[in-house]
Amino acid sequence: MSGIRAGEIRLESPLDMRATLCFIGHIESPWTDRATCPRNLRAARETGQPATLHIAPDFRPALDGITPGALLVALYWMHDARRDLLRQVPRHRPEGAGTFALRSPARPNPIGMGVVRVLEIDPTGGRLLIDAIDALDGTPLIDLKPHMALADCDGG
Amino acid sequence: MSGIRAGEIRLESPLDMRATLCFIGHIESPWTDRATCPRNLRAARETGQPATLHIAPDFRPALDGITPGALLVALYWMHDARRDLLRQVPRHRPEGAGTFALRSPARPNPIGMGVVRVLEIDPTGGRLLIDAIDALDGTPLIDLKPHMALADCDGG
Repeated sequence: MSGIRAGEIRLESPLDMRATLCFIGHIESPWTDRATCPRNLRAARETGQPATLHIAPDFRPALDGITPGALLVALYWMHDARRDLLRQVPRHRPEGAGTFALRSPARPNPIGMGVVRVLEIDPTGGRLLIDAIDALDGTPLIDLKPHMALADCDGG
Repeated sequence: MSGIRAGEIRLESPLDMRATLCFIGHIESPWTDRATCPRNLRAARETGQPATLHIAPDFRPALDGITPGALLVALYWMHDARRDLLRQVPRHRPEGAGTFALRSPARPNPIGMGVVRVLEIDPTGGRLLIDAIDALDGTPLIDLKPHMALADCDGG
């Protein structure tokens, strides 16, 4: 995980860890390895394959009020992504770009974000069937928020 | 920070911390206390007051490719929010709802999200002037991502 390509820049100093995350559940997806995992949510949707969000028992009361049809922002932790790349040269962008200008999983805090549609919800069992996700099977979940079109889209 | 209202539910067990975050910088905003801080990004925009994202020196190479006009997803850490509320009864929603159905700062992982427009950028100085933000002055930043209208808006 420590190689870099021409044009990439690595962080030389260690990351200064300042806050801690708990996992609220995990994602069950059809993507069991990086080779087949869609590169983004749009590509994931095009496969027509749904996914399931599993919420751990302690956190299930927090699902109250989520109904089928809801659009949610799911935040997840891409636990096997490297965290030291500041500039990257992805295959689809050979000129390279800074990490904060890319949606690559490799980032100082590897938090993934997906705006997903709830198809079915079982609050007691802690299961939400969603339309699609571009995360590997088993990826830990860290937050769910209601999507708000006015605030989260065009930026006003 | 430990009181609860009628209808609210608290997590009884301690949070099981599983991952660590680094801070990539901080937000400079006009909001120095909760009483005047806008309740959401839309309200922040309506004040007409811009804000500044400060990126720490180590992380500035990761800004390469961000230009004025860009729409970014800023993730920030609401470090003084409580983390034990599973169900909440906000003033504007007296019937209450689960934390994952609310955008309240109080959540198991107090990560805030704002879709913001870059007005000016100084990559060397690590400063991005943005149109608005609904976060308190001094809030730590944890990630910046390019916003992608097709993936981040209507959910396909």
